[in-house]
Amino acid sequence: MSHRIGIVDMGSGTARLVVYDFEPGQWFRLTDEIRESVRLGEGFAATGELSKAATERALDAIKLYADYAKATDLGKLTVIATSAVREAANSQDFLDKLEDFNLEFRVLSGEEEAQYGTLAVANSFQVSNAWVMDLGGGSAQISRLENRLFLRGQAFPLGYVRLTEQFLHGHRTSESEVKNLEKFVLRQLEPTLARMKKDAAPLIAMGGTIRNLARAVQKLEDYPLDALHGYELKREALENLIERLLELPVAERSSISGIHTDRADAILAGALVYRLVLRQTDTKSLIISGQGVREGAFYREFMPRPPHLFPEVRIFSVQNLFAHYPQDIQHTQHVRKLSKKLFDALEPIHGYGAADALLLDAAAYLHDIGMAVSYHDHHKHGAYLVLNTQMPGLTHREQVLLALLVQYHRKGDPKLGSYKRILEPDDELRLVRLSACLRLAEFLERSRSARVQDLRVTIEKERISIHLIADETPRVELWEASKHGDLFKRAFGHDLYLETDELQRGGVQDKRRRTPDGKTKRK
Amino acid sequence: MSHRIGIVDMGSGTARLVVYDFEPGQWFRLTDEIRESVRLGEGFAATGELSKAATERALDAIKLYADYAKATDLGKLTVIATSAVREAANSQDFLDKLEDFNLEFRVLSGEEEAQYGTLAVANSFQVSNAWVMDLGGGSAQISRLENRLFLRGQAFPLGYVRLTEQFLHGHRTSESEVKNLEKFVLRQLEPTLARMKKDAAPLIAMGGTIRNLARAVQKLEDYPLDALHGYELKREALENLIERLLELPVAERSSISGIHTDRADAILAGALVYRLVLRQTDTKSLIISGQGVREGAFYREFMPRPPHLFPEVRIFSVQNLFAHYPQDIQHTQHVRKLSKKLFDALEPIHGYGAADALLLDAAAYLHDIGMAVSYHDHHKHGAYLVLNTQMPGLTHREQVLLALLVQYHRKGDPKLGSYKRILEPDDELRLVRLSACLRLAEFLERSRSARVQDLRVTIEKERISIHLIADETPRVELWEASKHGDLFKRAFGHDLYLETDELQRGGVQDKRRRTPDGKTKRK
Repeated sequence: MSHRIGIVDMGSGTARLVVYDFEPGQWFRLTDEIRESVRLGEGFAATGELSKAATERALDAIKLYADYAKATDLGKLTVIATSAVREAANSQDFLDKLEDFNLEFRVLSGEEEAQYGTLAVANSFQVSNAWVMDLGGGSAQISRLENRLFLRGQAFPLGYVRLTEQFLHGHRTSESEVKNLEKFVLRQLEPTLARMKKDAAPLIAMGGTIRNLARAVQKLEDYPLDALHGYELKREALENLIERLLELPVAERSSISGIHTDRADAILAGALVYRLVLRQTDTKSLIISGQGVREGAFYREFMPRPPHLFPEVRIFSVQNLFAHYPQDIQHTQHVRKLSKKLFDALEPIHGYGAADALLLDAAAYLHDIGMAVSYHDHHKHGAYLVLNTQMPGLTHREQVLLALLVQYHRKGDPKLGSYKRILEPDDELRLVRLSACLRLAEFLERSRSARVQDLRVTIEKERISIHLIADETPRVELWEASKHGDLFKRAFGHDLYLETDELQRGGVQDKRRRTPDGKTKRK
Repeated sequence: MSHRIGIVDMGSGTARLVVYDFEPGQWFRLTDEIRESVRLGEGFAATGELSKAATERALDAIKLYADYAKATDLGKLTVIATSAVREAANSQDFLDKLEDFNLEFRVLSGEEEAQYGTLAVANSFQVSNAWVMDLGGGSAQISRLENRLFLRGQAFPLGYVRLTEQFLHGHRTSESEVKNLEKFVLRQLEPTLARMKKDAAPLIAMGGTIRNLARAVQKLEDYPLDALHGYELKREALENLIERLLELPVAERSSISGIHTDRADAILAGALVYRLVLRQTDTKSLIISGQGVREGAFYREFMPRPPHLFPEVRIFSVQNLFAHYPQDIQHTQHVRKLSKKLFDALEPIHGYGAADALLLDAAAYLHDIGMAVSYHDHHKHGAYLVLNTQMPGLTHREQVLLALLVQYHRKGDPKLGSYKRILEPDDELRLVRLSACLRLAEFLERSRSARVQDLRVTIEKERISIHLIADETPRVELWEASKHGDLFKRAFGHDLYLETDELQRGGVQDKRRRTPDGKTKRK
């Protein structure tokens, strides 16, 4: 049964409604989103209270979301409030006003906020241990993920709205303003930074500020992939971007490509916090998480049993994507089986390990999803779909390789193209070899009927013989597979030789025009 | 009920199986395709017979297709044979050998072949009258379409395999070879060419030769759209391409980007025929049809009642695409209704006619199809889907405008971008205006519940008031729609003013931060 819920993340800077369709534990899909720049925390730094104007903006947004929920028959609407609401002296007034609306309102403690963000990381990265940092409008959380579980975490009063109001007042930002801000941040974070340095682990960062900074760096670098989740932001790039921000008056900062207009005046504060953390812990880069508190809140609904974790992030990603573009499952499973057989049997030649096996299997799983677009060029459409979706658990390199494997599963000459710079030197050969396995499996299953039930591979001196196990001669499969001997030879250095029981004495070689009816040369 | 059939087009050059899923008269989808370069007509020019080798290649391909049909449980497999089989003295031997296979074998007469191709044109172009030319391996058909019906048509022995064998023997092509070929073609076509010149109508050309020539010209021109159907191939471009082909030895012709390897040695013959037709009829260009005899054969099944015509080609295209990516139909219909209301009411300002109304309606119909890819960036995915599919009945300009309307239906600043060169000078303004109508309709239907039942537009001196008819205050709609006042103003030169019954005395203006709860200034 499919469910539909809405979650509002009422931050100190922006409020955002996200709507999910899902089947618990099976698949989910984001189906709508409304973002409002509410700035609930505006003025808080000076007074410790929610201002009248800010409260009204927040109430307007809530009314809007409640109205949306009603008009669209949303099953459930949960509003999650963080720093500003939990800290303001007068937040009870605000909460009282919310009672008119039929919604679940949850004010998260600092630790809970940290916990939700960490859950999002645990379910969207292939990591067991990490430091997780979430910098919002009101507060910043730093948490420790260990064995995929939240170990500890804490909220600090270091949100970008708050810090901007406290420290950065001028039309331009002066050196002394930066110094004062940094001094304050350092005082707050000192013990935590010491722990981070001692107990090193990848730093994963979330929230609109770091996403926006990363986007600006990607634009500058002309990054070949349109994806933030999993992007590695180098400290050096961040340092350079901050220099550029500092050179400009506040009002002109949005002229930097990628910086959102409604973030431009407050983005520097957050950037300075990140720079300080990276400098103090002597860390060269951080990884962007496109998921955060909202997704954490969602995962608690989607995987209702604590600790709310997917068994395996990458596998879930692949299955979830397949569920969006469902294809013939028998054919899909059979291509997975045959490609795995080939990969395993050819291990003595390629020597690849578990990570490559998984990549090939993911490609076999997803090779036909482009059929959801159209039959013509479905290999290209499939690659487009893989590239244009978040693939939690995969690095950008893996996502690109997966897309390329899908792209070359049936035709074309496998090439890295414009993605080369985010791939590794031996990935071209890897792509050719994995493509050869996948393509052979695909064409040995050309009629989509699993009639090539199984295969046995023999690596001989000059050729690789593949014996097909089938009840009848799989004519289409022999014919079509034999057309791709060139790719196979390029991949494994041997001629491809296909044979069936019926053709024991003969065989089909990798000649395009040779036909599969026994009229081939004798052994 | 969904059907699944296969059609094999057994030409003199290539044999191709296409598989369609369809619901008669409702929707169809190409789901598989196997192409073999069989060259059944090879040697025919010299002997008037099917050669032994050619017959074997054709039989092998048929066996392959029959095997595919069996393995995939294809409901029906029809083989259509044309010129070579109908003319060869020994084709009965070939036909006898086919009796073992469970398939329908149809040898088309020259007129039938012409008729099938013409039907494909009538169902894939928005034209009533045209000359239709189909040049294959064995023969070339020229037909006259009148009032969307086949008036007359004839097959000529001018296929590219045949002409190449008859006239072009050298490693390089000499001037005298070209002259002799042209003389022969002219003798065959003279009366037809005279009729074409007298009774002028657009020339629509089909078949692999012209498609491949057009592809090469597109590559050369860096054409911004990856689509052949509907492409206008200029005579000048064809003349230049022929010059380049003539400069090269036959073996090197596939080095021209876009020319297929297995066509390179025979493509010149066809190109020369087209050049001659264009020259003799004094025609500046022809239009490529990506559809031909196969599609004609399919339409006879899909629309079983003669004359097998779709009532309206463009509308069928849009509906067929929607059927591939079905979205919430109530919401879709309501956006269509509201955008039409806006378009009609604003006619005094924009002055656009029926073609633009149809374009806007198509965009309203398809605006959400990108949701089939993902919610995030679904406007971009929708544009991708529109651009990457054949849209019969639309010109390339119309297809691009449709894609851009889908792309800008919810955000972004409407721009023509790289497509400018295939659009008209006033299309930028057209895009802005139609986008403004569509976007306003979309946001007045933001909660997808049709609660803004209707609207009344009043064009005032400085502003355009839109009165929304709704049972309750459509808060989300007012809020979200009012954010797009800038685009509206850019499109129509007036401020956008939204009002509801409840807000009779007030209104919502196009200020981002203004809230829709009556706190706006009085009239």
